[in-house]
Amino acid sequence: MKTVSILGSTGSIGTQTLEIIRQHPDKFKIVGLTANQNTELLIKQVKEFKPLETAVMDIKKASEVLNFTTVQVHHGIEGLNKIATLKEADIVVNALVGSIGIEPTYNAIKSKKNVALANKETLVAAGSVIMEEAKKNNVGIIPVDSEHSAILQCIQGNSINDIKKIIITCSGGPFKNKSSGELETATVNDALNHPTWNMGNKITIDSATLMNKGFEVIEAHWLYGIPYDKIEAVIHPQSIVHSFVEFKDNSVIAQLGLPDMKIPIQYALSFPERLESYFENKLNLAKIKNLEFSEPDFEKFPCLRCAYEAGKIGGTMPAALNASNEVAVKYFLEGKIKFLDIQKIIMKVMDEHNVIQNPSLKEILEADKNVKEITKNSIENES
Amino acid sequence: MKTVSILGSTGSIGTQTLEIIRQHPDKFKIVGLTANQNTELLIKQVKEFKPLETAVMDIKKASEVLNFTTVQVHHGIEGLNKIATLKEADIVVNALVGSIGIEPTYNAIKSKKNVALANKETLVAAGSVIMEEAKKNNVGIIPVDSEHSAILQCIQGNSINDIKKIIITCSGGPFKNKSSGELETATVNDALNHPTWNMGNKITIDSATLMNKGFEVIEAHWLYGIPYDKIEAVIHPQSIVHSFVEFKDNSVIAQLGLPDMKIPIQYALSFPERLESYFENKLNLAKIKNLEFSEPDFEKFPCLRCAYEAGKIGGTMPAALNASNEVAVKYFLEGKIKFLDIQKIIMKVMDEHNVIQNPSLKEILEADKNVKEITKNSIENES
Repeated sequence: MKTVSILGSTGSIGTQTLEIIRQHPDKFKIVGLTANQNTELLIKQVKEFKPLETAVMDIKKASEVLNFTTVQVHHGIEGLNKIATLKEADIVVNALVGSIGIEPTYNAIKSKKNVALANKETLVAAGSVIMEEAKKNNVGIIPVDSEHSAILQCIQGNSINDIKKIIITCSGGPFKNKSSGELETATVNDALNHPTWNMGNKITIDSATLMNKGFEVIEAHWLYGIPYDKIEAVIHPQSIVHSFVEFKDNSVIAQLGLPDMKIPIQYALSFPERLESYFENKLNLAKIKNLEFSEPDFEKFPCLRCAYEAGKIGGTMPAALNASNEVAVKYFLEGKIKFLDIQKIIMKVMDEHNVIQNPSLKEILEADKNVKEITKNSIENES
Repeated sequence: MKTVSILGSTGSIGTQTLEIIRQHPDKFKIVGLTANQNTELLIKQVKEFKPLETAVMDIKKASEVLNFTTVQVHHGIEGLNKIATLKEADIVVNALVGSIGIEPTYNAIKSKKNVALANKETLVAAGSVIMEEAKKNNVGIIPVDSEHSAILQCIQGNSINDIKKIIITCSGGPFKNKSSGELETATVNDALNHPTWNMGNKITIDSATLMNKGFEVIEAHWLYGIPYDKIEAVIHPQSIVHSFVEFKDNSVIAQLGLPDMKIPIQYALSFPERLESYFENKLNLAKIKNLEFSEPDFEKFPCLRCAYEAGKIGGTMPAALNASNEVAVKYFLEGKIKFLDIQKIIMKVMDEHNVIQNPSLKEILEADKNVKEITKNSIENES
């Protein structure tokens, strides 16, 4: 029996994690849950899964929960950190969205918890610090992302030293076949209309700009210690192959599955073992018929290029990349800037960012905060 | 340093094995070589690789070799067995074609050699006996076949008990898109014109009838202990994915590579490790562009169905299947029967075969011999 805390239990990854845990009551026990805003759902989850403690970001919202349950309800970032470090938890599922997720991951690791990591920002912005801390505390960072889960599955029984290349697949997003001119006028709804994956809003926009793939390149670099020139992205519109690993003998191992996050989430929970899937997510290749692959277009989607650049520059640059993207996407989702403004803003911020090399977590979090402020001001002043 | 004997060193697999060994002189040393007819090439190989002993099937041919070398030259099946059991060998590569390969595999196992197995007949006809003996002697049967090598690679770091299904890919052969009417008039040259793989004649014809895929289903059954209803074949014309393994969590692992036997041969030699490939066999997915999959047509290619049936019936039936096929293919290659006669002959022989359950090796070899005789007589009497 593994005891599990979920940070962000009411979001897309959080609710799917609970669906899996519901199917395996003999394997997992929920000990902590946290929500950002959706206290209505959190209350339902608390009643069903009976965690020991909970947290809600907003202090007022937190008190709402108190009326419906006797379990302890923490609040704010302190609350997240509390649930991330609960002594009763074996695994912390970090399903938070945004750079808010970095500190709880760090604290979970310090408390010797294995982390099932769905929060991209943790490794994008703070990969060096996080991986060093994980090594020091001898805990596992198990990716929840379908691509990194695929890589993890492909390297089982193999040596990391035998990897020649990691090839991360990319659906291409909703704008794969759009011209640069069409991207100029792309609306929020266009960008949210992802062809294969059903995900949260922020990550869906990141998929439309290919920034999401860029983040995944940086994450793969940290998770598997592979240099950037050995990590490639390949467009694969069907989202059936979730990534490839090429070994030194030119043999390539791939992991495939329907585009259903429950498969990688379950693997992250059960790792290194596998558990039965009780979901309708069985792949039928003869039914899929075709798997297509092509090179990504770095000209049309400069965010992917920016991510490689930020990764190679290192230091606080990936944190700046992430922070400027987070703010730009927020403004785009609010209809305040255009789709192509996202990349322009990011490039401008990167150009102006003073990189601190070998940053501490504190310096990374400060860079995150500062760049967000700079990006916000820059957008506000432009319009 | 692993010491290697190759049975059938002048054939397609044998020569490619030597190409690999030539690239890794620090890893492998040849101690034994055998040839069927091609003594000219064997002599060259002996000069280059300096084995301790050799064998040639034909006694007269064997004496030819003696004029060119001072190494010992055995002959006949005794000679094969001698090289298969050389005390200096760690691994025996069995690259023999036909049921002649069964006994040497058995003897190699008895002598505690790991066997890199390219000879299909060993497991098709004698899977039960061979696997039992391998277990008893604690030796590995490492497949050289691209499909079984793929499966072996896919299950590394996983538990055999977690396998839900094995999906063996099949190019579909040269007649994939031909009508049954067109198959009626297919010539030897048509059948030898394989779209993706460059292999020996016997296996190329088996690929055209899909019998080769049927054999691979039976081999997979024995190698991995998976029941027949959990082994599927899927048509994949590009021959890039060499097989899939579906696990109980609905995650699917695949092995891919260019259709180059040097990749699986090298893996069989280096297993469980990987070695650098110095060959031009690097996969580029964006260049390949498309991977297609479809269901096999059991009506048009009844040999595949026969193999499943023979496997499920068990006992000496797979040996009978193999023996009748071996004779029928020989007659087809000699232009003495038509393409569709192959399947008719096999079905007739299977109908009439008296199955011995739980056969000994002797009973299997007798069944092989008898069925070959019966098949031969049946063909001769028909024409």
